[in-house]
Amino acid sequence: MKDEKREISRRDLLVGAGKVAAGAAIVSVGASGLIRPGKTEAAQFPWGYKKLDLQEVGDIAYNAWYGKFCCQAVVEGLLKPLQKSIGDPYASLPLDAFKWGHGGAVGWGTLCGTMTGAGIATGFIAGPEGEKILNDVIAYYASTELPIYKPANPKGSFKNVNRSDSPLCHISVGKWMEKEGVKFFSPQRKERCARISADVAMYTAKLLNDWADGKYKPAHGSNLKDNGITTQENCMECHGDNVPTPIT
Amino acid sequence: MKDEKREISRRDLLVGAGKVAAGAAIVSVGASGLIRPGKTEAAQFPWGYKKLDLQEVGDIAYNAWYGKFCCQAVVEGLLKPLQKSIGDPYASLPLDAFKWGHGGAVGWGTLCGTMTGAGIATGFIAGPEGEKILNDVIAYYASTELPIYKPANPKGSFKNVNRSDSPLCHISVGKWMEKEGVKFFSPQRKERCARISADVAMYTAKLLNDWADGKYKPAHGSNLKDNGITTQENCMECHGDNVPTPIT
Repeated sequence: MKDEKREISRRDLLVGAGKVAAGAAIVSVGASGLIRPGKTEAAQFPWGYKKLDLQEVGDIAYNAWYGKFCCQAVVEGLLKPLQKSIGDPYASLPLDAFKWGHGGAVGWGTLCGTMTGAGIATGFIAGPEGEKILNDVIAYYASTELPIYKPANPKGSFKNVNRSDSPLCHISVGKWMEKEGVKFFSPQRKERCARISADVAMYTAKLLNDWADGKYKPAHGSNLKDNGITTQENCMECHGDNVPTPIT
Repeated sequence: MKDEKREISRRDLLVGAGKVAAGAAIVSVGASGLIRPGKTEAAQFPWGYKKLDLQEVGDIAYNAWYGKFCCQAVVEGLLKPLQKSIGDPYASLPLDAFKWGHGGAVGWGTLCGTMTGAGIATGFIAGPEGEKILNDVIAYYASTELPIYKPANPKGSFKNVNRSDSPLCHISVGKWMEKEGVKFFSPQRKERCARISADVAMYTAKLLNDWADGKYKPAHGSNLKDNGITTQENCMECHGDNVPTPIT
């Protein structure tokens, strides 16, 4: 059965991406996709980027929130399109690994999971340069009346938007719950968080698109350098008039 | 040159992990590692675990802190040994992608990056079950006098340990800075954070080892269910006597 045999010379396999891909393709003939030919040790970090469609990013994040919550919603909004447009290594990344960021880290009310998701995505996409983008995304979250995103097919509704002045889930959600007059497990609160997931994913994608075009300029400065300690710059909100002066 | 040719029959390649591995091995002969034979679409999520040596985990995290900071330090303490013992998919994960969590997310003082690192690692290792482990790690961080870890070859020294009562970088570091009487960019603060990275990585590994042995029992409950909002359970620390009552 001559046509069921393939001959591979050592020379055919020696380096050169094209030759290697050929070898891998042969393997995949019989293995029907069990091995991914695209996966190579040469995969560079950071993993790179192709410009994203903001509406698609927002829609994915909004819909993903229901079931996967804030952190994974933003990761999916940003990385699912890259899994399609770039393939590996994005395609091999299990996005379910990032659900834990919900509720400010498994319900502890710390960093709103939308920004944990933005950090994870920008870390893979842009490496160290992603930190400046994340810094600007957090500043945007704290200083903007959210949500802004309007779903084409809403799963719920509510009345109020709010500015959190803080990236903390507890503060952001707590202020909004008080304004809206609803409890945490209400459909209004869920819809609000789903839409904010879309907003954070879209704003991150907007900055990444600018970055890809060479137009991105970091806007927010360093909280740490400004205050001599890691901080949110809303000191009086917890400290009242007794804001400690860091040793300098 | 007969010995430079290999014949692969279609039957040799047809399914069955052993056969596929054989095919992949042939590719790697000529490609000298450009394709990782171990990388297959069948890679299951979560990625799994082999029990870790706690001392090794702590030592890796402590040393990694200097240069990579808290979040990546914990990721490296937990995942570098698994990159060796398990290989892919861990081996292909660029751990530099997780540096951004430092200083409570690029210096915003939110979740101490050690626990962002623990979340990332347990997410890959244990998937949804990792959330219970992370919940217990955060409770441990907030309720324990830290650091405990003593490096064999210390890079610095300091006098005080403290209990943060909070997973927030700003609160944890701020209370300790006041107690120690040092500024943020002091060698003492750096050494303290490096050792806490070791503590968090080691405690996470301890729980994961118990989990691998089938002995792990979640200890901390749900802050969200207890308080009707995502929270740290240290309400009066920011609210004073005016702790709001969530709508229930």
